[in-house]
Amino acid sequence: MKTREIAEFLSAELIGDGDVEIHAVAALVTASAGEIAFIEKADVATTSAAACLIVPVTFAAQTIAPQIRVSDPKLALARVAKKLKKHERRYFGAEHSIIAKTADVRTIEIGSFVTIGENSFIGEGCEIGDGVRIGRNVVIKKFTVLHPNCVIYDNVQIGSHCVVHAGVVIGAEGFGYIRDEDGEYHQFPQIGTVVIEDNVEIGANSCVDRGSLGETRIGEGTKIDNLVQIAHNVQIGKRVVIAAQTGISGSTVIEDDCVIGGQVGMGDHARVQSGAIIGSQAGVLPGKIVRPGVWWGTPVQPLDEYKRQNAHVKGLERLKAEVKELKKKLD
Amino acid sequence: MKTREIAEFLSAELIGDGDVEIHAVAALVTASAGEIAFIEKADVATTSAAACLIVPVTFAAQTIAPQIRVSDPKLALARVAKKLKKHERRYFGAEHSIIAKTADVRTIEIGSFVTIGENSFIGEGCEIGDGVRIGRNVVIKKFTVLHPNCVIYDNVQIGSHCVVHAGVVIGAEGFGYIRDEDGEYHQFPQIGTVVIEDNVEIGANSCVDRGSLGETRIGEGTKIDNLVQIAHNVQIGKRVVIAAQTGISGSTVIEDDCVIGGQVGMGDHARVQSGAIIGSQAGVLPGKIVRPGVWWGTPVQPLDEYKRQNAHVKGLERLKAEVKELKKKLD
Amino acid sequence: MKTREIAEFLSAELIGDGDVEIHAVAALVTASAGEIAFIEKADVATTSAAACLIVPVTFAAQTIAPQIRVSDPKLALARVAKKLKKHERRYFGAEHSIIAKTADVRTIEIGSFVTIGENSFIGEGCEIGDGVRIGRNVVIKKFTVLHPNCVIYDNVQIGSHCVVHAGVVIGAEGFGYIRDEDGEYHQFPQIGTVVIEDNVEIGANSCVDRGSLGETRIGEGTKIDNLVQIAHNVQIGKRVVIAAQTGISGSTVIEDDCVIGGQVGMGDHARVQSGAIIGSQAGVLPGKIVRPGVWWGTPVQPLDEYKRQNAHVKGLERLKAEVKELKKKLD
Repeated sequence: MKTREIAEFLSAELIGDGDVEIHAVAALVTASAGEIAFIEKADVATTSAAACLIVPVTFAAQTIAPQIRVSDPKLALARVAKKLKKHERRYFGAEHSIIAKTADVRTIEIGSFVTIGENSFIGEGCEIGDGVRIGRNVVIKKFTVLHPNCVIYDNVQIGSHCVVHAGVVIGAEGFGYIRDEDGEYHQFPQIGTVVIEDNVEIGANSCVDRGSLGETRIGEGTKIDNLVQIAHNVQIGKRVVIAAQTGISGSTVIEDDCVIGGQVGMGDHARVQSGAIIGSQAGVLPGKIVRPGVWWGTPVQPLDEYKRQNAHVKGLERLKAEVKELKKKLD
Repeated sequence: MKTREIAEFLSAELIGDGDVEIHAVAALVTASAGEIAFIEKADVATTSAAACLIVPVTFAAQTIAPQIRVSDPKLALARVAKKLKKHERRYFGAEHSIIAKTADVRTIEIGSFVTIGENSFIGEGCEIGDGVRIGRNVVIKKFTVLHPNCVIYDNVQIGSHCVVHAGVVIGAEGFGYIRDEDGEYHQFPQIGTVVIEDNVEIGANSCVDRGSLGETRIGEGTKIDNLVQIAHNVQIGKRVVIAAQTGISGSTVIEDDCVIGGQVGMGDHARVQSGAIIGSQAGVLPGKIVRPGVWWGTPVQPLDEYKRQNAHVKGLERLKAEVKELKKKLD
Repeated sequence: MKTREIAEFLSAELIGDGDVEIHAVAALVTASAGEIAFIEKADVATTSAAACLIVPVTFAAQTIAPQIRVSDPKLALARVAKKLKKHERRYFGAEHSIIAKTADVRTIEIGSFVTIGENSFIGEGCEIGDGVRIGRNVVIKKFTVLHPNCVIYDNVQIGSHCVVHAGVVIGAEGFGYIRDEDGEYHQFPQIGTVVIEDNVEIGANSCVDRGSLGETRIGEGTKIDNLVQIAHNVQIGKRVVIAAQTGISGSTVIEDDCVIGGQVGMGDHARVQSGAIIGSQAGVLPGKIVRPGVWWGTPVQPLDEYKRQNAHVKGLERLKAEVKELKKKLD
């Protein structure tokens, strides 16, 4: 792609040579010939060897490399990176894999030692990594990537353009037991399913359990980090972001456009309303409704309240001294 | 199974047709012909199309579907679900697996790309999923299911009727190091083992480390959720329930019949006494003895105390104002 | 090894027979003929059947077994265990594995169903467990062990004498997204790499993400427990210890010789200075600099402050009563 084409693609102003060939993005400090980098702030001086720079519209310095001027350089770089990314075919035909005769597989990008169960469907353009296990009656739509060694249980549905990282387990039985009069635990049936909509990304070693009787659902465009736990019957909306090691208990609902930090714990049957932001390590009690806004702490409270309360706690030593003083005076 | 047979199996009263054939359990709202559903509360009106309903003994409404009246409908459904569950044979003989000649394998339900090491024993009725790794001298008793891609290190023992979900790692080396005078860490030997008793269930991607010199043990009927960490030499009793993402440090003991919430952290050498319940995200300090009762917070305290203390903290703003007022008066 | 040789190896005094053959370490209570055990404290009486005892220099009791007297018996046992450990060859030549023709593999200890990608290098003495996935252009130096089913993405570098436990994922894409004007998330490029230096150990099912544009690095001699999350561009120094289930966000730096407890959460772009110790379940805010010393709580504070503050909170009930009393008096 030439610098001129990149500027056009971004609908942005180009200053400098429009004919420089760009083949990859890179960090500002390591970029070299053929690479494009970005500068986030207007007042950064650079001696980068990048062949092209994406800069803020307010960027003042002159550079040898041509500049492409945009309102959000980081976003622009992300877009260019996606545009420049070439699909390198990694697998050429499941030579050492076991695919059920009744499975309908429409991609040849299947790695080695993969197993695909009866009546499962894998759509065109999908990439199924080495050692992936796909159960029976699974549906995986188009252009979805399953990285090596992830496990998809029976009946799970995964949309198009999803990315599922290594070691992810989707569709394991949920954690639901009922105790009998003798104290023994009996598993409540975990025979529901999981539906993952389009453009979802799931980080390495995360787990999404199947619904007990209904379904667990992850909405379109939602991004989930590593080692996250999604329990049975959880409903996650569209464009939700969930950072690493967070755990969401059974039947909890997270509406569209929420942002959930890392190591957050949510009790069962809670509801996080659209637009809520929950800080890392927060705890949401079972059944709690979390309204839009920024939330923090365990149990979660609005960030302002949390800060005020924290300040009060930090001021306790002084308060105690004041009370002592008052006592003395009074005596 | 006919409705009459289900009522007999549950020792429960049947109202309505005893000859309806039931082949599966289902959710109330989605149930249809041949399916049985449950209603938890007496005052729920239903238009379910279920072929049979399990209802509380106090259930008043008339229904077209026959009713089976029990004291605990949810438990009854769990029992019926187990009864109705047909074992569908998934694997037929380890065709693409590598089994050591000295291994004694008494089931043909072994998936593809499995490896089983020397002198290991796999009992009758076991199901070993695709890509499972079983080391040397492992013993797995009868009717235990290992889901795909889990890893069992050498010398581990697993009982009968256990379920081990995908990605679980049992028997990895514990985390124990000793620092020398130069600041280098030396691994303390991690050559013990893991013993898992009968009827244990372990959730996806959980880890149970082997004992350093002794054993790590998980008692009969204990249920462990996803992404849980059980360190070396931990002793877990019978019928313990541990929710997702909890971590238990080395040599800690959890006695029978405890319930541990999600994301709980326990220090080493702690002891949780029989019948204790620990709330989610709680923290148990090393060496702490947790008596029976309900516990909460970090460090854990009795739930009542935790609530009272929380109320005091929330009242701090008012207390501060009162002190200010007193000061003014006194001046 | 004879008892005399062990004493020499430890530069320690031997009391008793120097010709006893020792072939393994064991726990004091279970040790028997041919095994060596240790006693940590001077005042422990023992009836151990161990063939040799490592004891503190101040140990007073007489024993039938020969004694080796050292200043740190636990460390001495660790050293002897390592010395006695025989390498048992487990794999003999990758018979059922797929190794790219351009890969340079210098060990025959490759398990079954392994895949190794193009241009990757595996050094001499390495042990690659069953079902391990190694991408393209990966470098693994000498004598490193990858336990079964772990996944190494493209371009990752791993040093010598490392141990990577089962289910570990190294080099997955980091979690970085930028939102556009329509609310859609775009992945920031995650095309950097991971460098793991020598003598590093990584616990089961842990994840180390690749750098976005730069690298994620784990320093020499660092030990990481199970289920730990290391995000993109994190820099971890030498001889750092990180306990289970801790999560470290993007670009955070942990300098040499830090000790991080379990379930700790660190925000992005924080810096933990050399020698800092952070207690379990602590939370480090983004950008925070944690100086040397012992830290605790969320957000982290020095342990002394944390304890004092905790005491104040516990004293709140009394303080409230005092204020009430003052009020009464004043009225």
